[in-house]
This record gives sequence, structure tokens and C-alpha cells, in this order.
Amino acid sequence: MTLIERLAQIVGPAHVLTGEDCARYSTDWTGVYPSTPIAVVRPTSTEEVSAVVKAAAAEGVPIVPVCGNTGLCGGTYSEGALMVSLERMNAVREIRKEARVAVVEAGVVLDKMHEAVDPHGLIFPLIFGARGSAMLGGCLSTNAGGSNVVRYGSTRALCLGLEVVLPSGEVLDLMTALHKDNSGYDLKDLFIGAEGTLGIITAATLKLFPKPAAYATAMVAVPSLDDALVMLNRLQSATGGAVEAFEYMPGPTIDAITAHFDGMRSPFDETYDVNILVEIGATAARDAIPGDDGTLPVVAYLEEVLGGMLEEESVLDAVVAQNETQRAAMWAIREGNAEVALENPPFVNTDVCVPLDRVAEFLEKIEPRMKALDEDMTSMCVCHFGDGNIHYTAQPSRYDDALLDRILEEVEELAIALGGSFSAEHGIGLTKLASMRRRKNPVALAVMRQIKAALDPQGIMNPGKVLP
Amino acid sequence: MTLIERLAQIVGPAHVLTGEDCARYSTDWTGVYPSTPIAVVRPTSTEEVSAVVKAAAAEGVPIVPVCGNTGLCGGTYSEGALMVSLERMNAVREIRKEARVAVVEAGVVLDKMHEAVDPHGLIFPLIFGARGSAMLGGCLSTNAGGSNVVRYGSTRALCLGLEVVLPSGEVLDLMTALHKDNSGYDLKDLFIGAEGTLGIITAATLKLFPKPAAYATAMVAVPSLDDALVMLNRLQSATGGAVEAFEYMPGPTIDAITAHFDGMRSPFDETYDVNILVEIGATAARDAIPGDDGTLPVVAYLEEVLGGMLEEESVLDAVVAQNETQRAAMWAIREGNAEVALENPPFVNTDVCVPLDRVAEFLEKIEPRMKALDEDMTSMCVCHFGDGNIHYTAQPSRYDDALLDRILEEVEELAIALGGSFSAEHGIGLTKLASMRRRKNPVALAVMRQIKAALDPQGIMNPGKVLP
Repeated sequence: MTLIERLAQIVGPAHVLTGEDCARYSTDWTGVYPSTPIAVVRPTSTEEVSAVVKAAAAEGVPIVPVCGNTGLCGGTYSEGALMVSLERMNAVREIRKEARVAVVEAGVVLDKMHEAVDPHGLIFPLIFGARGSAMLGGCLSTNAGGSNVVRYGSTRALCLGLEVVLPSGEVLDLMTALHKDNSGYDLKDLFIGAEGTLGIITAATLKLFPKPAAYATAMVAVPSLDDALVMLNRLQSATGGAVEAFEYMPGPTIDAITAHFDGMRSPFDETYDVNILVEIGATAARDAIPGDDGTLPVVAYLEEVLGGMLEEESVLDAVVAQNETQRAAMWAIREGNAEVALENPPFVNTDVCVPLDRVAEFLEKIEPRMKALDEDMTSMCVCHFGDGNIHYTAQPSRYDDALLDRILEEVEELAIALGGSFSAEHGIGLTKLASMRRRKNPVALAVMRQIKAALDPQGIMNPGKVLP
Repeated sequence: MTLIERLAQIVGPAHVLTGEDCARYSTDWTGVYPSTPIAVVRPTSTEEVSAVVKAAAAEGVPIVPVCGNTGLCGGTYSEGALMVSLERMNAVREIRKEARVAVVEAGVVLDKMHEAVDPHGLIFPLIFGARGSAMLGGCLSTNAGGSNVVRYGSTRALCLGLEVVLPSGEVLDLMTALHKDNSGYDLKDLFIGAEGTLGIITAATLKLFPKPAAYATAMVAVPSLDDALVMLNRLQSATGGAVEAFEYMPGPTIDAITAHFDGMRSPFDETYDVNILVEIGATAARDAIPGDDGTLPVVAYLEEVLGGMLEEESVLDAVVAQNETQRAAMWAIREGNAEVALENPPFVNTDVCVPLDRVAEFLEKIEPRMKALDEDMTSMCVCHFGDGNIHYTAQPSRYDDALLDRILEEVEELAIALGGSFSAEHGIGLTKLASMRRRKNPVALAVMRQIKAALDPQGIMNPGKVLP
């Protein structure tokens, strides 16, 4: 029996796709790494995933797990490999409202997860642009981040339990809903963020949180990023840690985005250098009950801090959203960045992280370094400032592979010099293999290779990704 | 040159202890596992730890790292092994107030850490009974928990960066202060909680948090643990997640503790079945500013929730601490448990965890099972209810090793049956090896063994611990 026949036995012939039928799987969102898998198989249960992996492993056929295929680093490139799509494992198995946990399968689309928990007055706080197609298995495999990490942490922090099909096909059941479990090594966190190179995540137990009863959202211009950090800390103190997002955009980036989209405009009449989109969540119920003047307390807290900083001249200007439409308009600017950044090739997109108190230094130093490489270079930048995560997009004046590589090197070098990382939330996949090779601590790389060899001695799980 | 001579070269002869001089290291806080190490070596830098490990590894001599020696599971038993004490690596290297991180060495005593960050208006929130002697390296190696996990998480959640000396003596430098870092496998979390079996933690970058400006603390009697969970969720909603501790004690446990200590008395005149010690932190500055009637808002929130539940009869009685003395008296009852539990041998101490919505079921079912084993058995119990972590201490009526083992089996079996773990926050060490063997998922155990073999092929790092 051929492998394809064996797979058809396991999942049914309708769910083993070959040839043309693989087309929609064989290129990811970026389109940078098209590939031709030998087949796409779509199991519907953990048992089927296990049987599929055993069948492939028996023939030494490489396996590439795929969920929503919205990654930015080529993690699902699958030339000559068997793609295992988790899309049919899409059940929210259980929502336990009092314990504030959900038991889910890997193929649940992030937005569907949001919808599933909403009627319970709860949120699953992970949120980012691709939420309409990204699936939870992919979020876990890449330890996805996004805009709310400052409050709730990355995907890793949201996961209590995990189920993984190992490269041998064995099922590793770590599906607890426990807040404390010190029974041996922390295996769960090894698989989260491993990008499918150590096994296939099939299910998870995830934390849920009370839904904020209201939000206070503002666009704020400050003289410098040092003032921004002061503002972040003051808001955390004023609200008891209720800052849900704290996003930095330079003035020219806002100008470029608002110029690009019809009808979009900056909340400010002038262009300021340093702009922060801040959002506070009213998780304390009373903070969403209007005061005598009709103002929500959560909005009053925000206005109080901003007012104080305006007087001190450590805030230059601020616009507080007065309703959901104004709030959405502010977020549209922030989320418009990806589209605009990708529309002006050539560009070098980066995803670096530095400590919170080094963000200002990074951004001060990067521009002159870029100008030294290419005097006519422009740039866009957005930054999850609350996490120190900077997406700096350099737009050089010419196509030149050596220049593009030098730009990447320069950005990464500066991040590393400031105690940072060359990959904050997008992972490694294929696109950052070179960075792993030249930047990652060699002792850490050696330990990762030892773990990979121990868990996947055949090297069949998403080969060629993560580890150079 | 002998190993002892070589070690004396590395750390200086004054810091290689042998014979009698090892006495204070060779038994831990419990006194259950006295042992005779071949020597105790006290390096003062990462480089010295590295050189010590290389010297021992070259001769295949087993190594047992030790910090404050306050563990409860025999993790530092070191018969025939070289003990490496981290006590001289006791510097708080750096406190970065704006970034809210501290860079520390493994030998910093937990209380010293609290003192070091306090002048900055910050806290390192990890807190438990042994804080006067436990050291941060031990806290990290055991992923220590305690009373504030419900708000801040276990030690793992408080650690951004780590430095580890590997079994080869190589230094693994993961000392970042980053909130996002997806550059390869999550190695940090593999070493946290590994109890020194994969390497020696020498330093860490830890998260700091704003110090609550005030606390609201109460002892509350409720009809059932289901009501307790409702109260926890209501308080979280009322305060936006500011519950710092939520500790359950049954009435007889409070009676036993208050009877044991001179001058200690229950805040209640009668004995209630289900008592909760709850504490809310005023992390929002305004919650510590007295209102018109002199009440702190943080106290008012607590009283409001309790008042509503009293009316519904889902709270039976409540005493809110009116000052720091009353607050301390409530905590003294809670913290008196350990001493009283250990003073009535024979006893079986347990540290299990179940999902939050299974705690009530666990506690309902455990008593009849215990009575079936030994009709005259008594018990004590405290529970970090906010984490589902139950410390149930059974006090059988007679010494009988088979009975003691049956008790342990019964407690663990019930926890596992409810989706729980047999080790919540104390770890495995030696005392829970049997539980690991009979309870831990065999696939998980196999993966742990693969990792251990890959990282420590000689098997010299804290051998015989964690993995049966």
C-alpha cells in the first residue's frame, strides 16, 4: 500500500488532497515561499493525527503541520513533505465559566474562539490582524503575540494544558486545567513556540478572562519615548494594571497610513514625532458606570493622568475616543500599518524586541544607521511599546540584495546590542534561519539541537525550520 | 591533583568544606534525608561555578546544587555527591525601576530581594513561609509557589531571563529582560522547575510589580466552596483582578492552629466549616485614598461584595481587618498551619492541585475515603483556593507504613481523577519519585528522560531526583 492509500484509509479519501487540490495550502499569507507538498491530509481527531504521523514516520516522510497559514516566516513551506492540516479539528470542546478555562482543538479560528466565549462574559485576550483566519494551533506553535500582550501575555501565558502528537506518533497528553503543576519538567512550554518542529499540537486548555465592561482609548502625543514610558507606568499605577494596549507610532508612519486609506485621518491636526495609542480596560465593573457628569470612571482615570502630564508638558496633545466609532478609527490607523508597509517594495520588515527602557535608545540610533547605508531610505515603524516589541520596516531607495541584508543585520545588531532579540513574536520559520545562525547564542543553539535530536531522531517534523 | 585540590584552586581553600564542616548543608529543613556529601564548594561567580562543574564532570562526580535548603521533597540529598552552594552569589546586580526588572544572583535570599526592591515602590511578589532563608536559585529550580500565585503566578511567571551552568560546565546565557522572545525553543522554562537535574541556575532577570498602596484583608465564612468560587470571581470582577490571596481553611484546622499558639484566636466566635482568608491589593493608587467616611476604597469594594453575599446568605460571617495588626493576626493563623501539621506525627503531608471548579468535589470526597482507611484519622487542610492547590495533611491514628502509603495513594488518586496533579508547588525531589512512577503520564515521563539524557548524558546533575 502506498502512503497515500494508507492515509486515505485513516482519514477517508476525501481528506487526502494531492496535485492541484493542494494549491490553497502550498503558499502562505506572504506568498514568499510557494512549495509543492506530496499531499495535504486533513485528520479530524487526535487519533487520526497520531495514525497519520505513524504512517509518515514509518516511511521517513517529512511532515509539515498547518493551521491558518497566516505566519510571516515561511514556517509551513512543505516542498516534498506531507502537510497535516488541523482545520477539521475545530471544536471548542468545553467552556468552564467558573474555572475560566476553555478546552479547544488546534483548528479553531481565533475569531471563532472570541465568539464562543463572548456570551459567557469572558474573553480569550489574544488578538492580532490575522484573527479571522489564524487558528489556535498555529498561535500556540508560534507563541503568537499581538496588541494585548502588555496585559495578558503572549499565547504561552494563556495556555494551561496541551495535547501534542510526537514525531513517533505517540500522543503526549498534558491537557490539564491547572494553575500549578510541578510534576517534572515543563514540557508544555517546550512545544509552544517550537513551530511544529517537535510535534503537532492538536488541542489545548486555555485561560479565559473577564470581559472589560468598557474601554478608554486615546491617541497621545508625547515629547519623547522616555515620557511614553513614564506615562505607561503612571497609567498602570492609576488603574491597577489595566493597560490593555500601548502602541507607539511615529508621526510619518501615521501620515503614510492615513494618506493611503480613503477617509482615514489622524486624530491630530499636526504631525507629532511620538504618538501612543493607549487603551485601558474597565475590568472592575464599577469603572464602566458613568459618574455624575456622564463620564465613565475608566475614561476619567485616563484623562486624569493625561491632564497631569499636559500640565507638566510631558504630554503635547491627546484625543480621547468619545465613542466606539472613534475608538475603531484609532485602531484602524494602527492596523493599517501592515498593508501600507508591504505596498512599497523593496522593504525589510523586522520584528525585534528590546527591554522597555531601551526602546527609546533603539529608535534614536536606528535612523542615522539606516541613513548611513542608504541616504534616501524611508521607514515605517509601529511598536508594541508595552512589550518592547518593535516592527521597524525599512524602505530602501533601490533593490539591492546586499543592501537589504545589511539593513536587516544593522537592525538586529542594534537590538542585540541593547539586550534584545531578533525575533519577538513572529518566530523563525525559514526567513530568520540566517539570523538564528549568526545571532543566537551558540550554547543555546546547541541545547536546542540536542532537544530536537532527542525528540525527533528521524528529523521528520517540519524539517529545516527554526534550527539552522 | 585530587578533585578537592582542584576545587580549592578554583574557589579558594576556605570555600571547599569537607567532613564536619559540611554538617549544616547535609540535612534540609525537613530533616528527613540526612546525607554525607564528599564536599561542599561555595563559588562566588558564574565562572567559578562553570569551572567547578567542569572539574567534577571530568571525574564523573555527581553534583547537587543547593541554595537555602528549605525544600520539602529531599531535592538536595547528596550522599557521595559534590554540593555546590550558591550562597555566595548573593548580589542584586541591578534594579531597573522604569523597566520593572531586577537582575539577581541565585544566592539572594527571598526576603533580601523583597527589601532590595521596596525602596523603589516595587515588589517581587513571590512570598511563602520560608522566605527568610529560601534563595532565588532554589525558588527558580523548584518553580516555587506560595500565597500570591492567584495574582502574580508562580516563580516561572516572574522570570524573564536566566543563566544556567550546564552539566558540561558551559554557561547558557539566557539573561534577557524581554517580554517577547520567539527566537527558538523556550529553554528558560525547561530549567525552571527542573530541580537542578539539567543544570545549575546561577542568575536571573526577574519581573517587579508596583507595590499595592494598601490591602483589604478579611476572614470570611461561606456555606460551601461553591460559594467561595462565586466570591472569588465576584471579587475579581469588582476589583479588576486585584485579588492577591484567596486561602481556604476548614473550621477544625483554624481551631487546631489557634489552640496551639498562645494568644492566637479565631476572628469568629463560632466554628464555621468553610473559611476564606482573602486579600485585595490597592494597586490603583486611588484605591488607597480614604473616602469621606474614612474608608479606603479597596476596603469598600471588599465590603460591598461581602455585604451583597451576606444578604443572599451565600456568606455566613465576615471580619474585615481594621488595621495592620488585625491583618497580621489573620495571616498568622494561615501560616501557623505548617508548624501544627508537623507536630502531630504520624502524618501524611500532600501538595495536590485540581482545577478551580473541582476543589469542592475533592474536599467532599476525600474525608469519607480517609475514614474508610482509618476511622480515627483526623486531618488538617489549607488550600491556595485561587490556584486549586490543596495541602491536605492526614493524621492517622497509628504508625503503619502501609497505611501511610495508602493515604498518599488515595489523596493522589482522587486528585488525578479530578484532572489534577500530585505535585502542585513543592516539586518531586526524592519524596515524590514513587508518585512520578505510578502517576505521571508514561509518554511525558519518556520525553523527560529523553531530555535529561540529551542534556546530561553522564547523569551527574542532581542524580536520582525528579525522574524515577
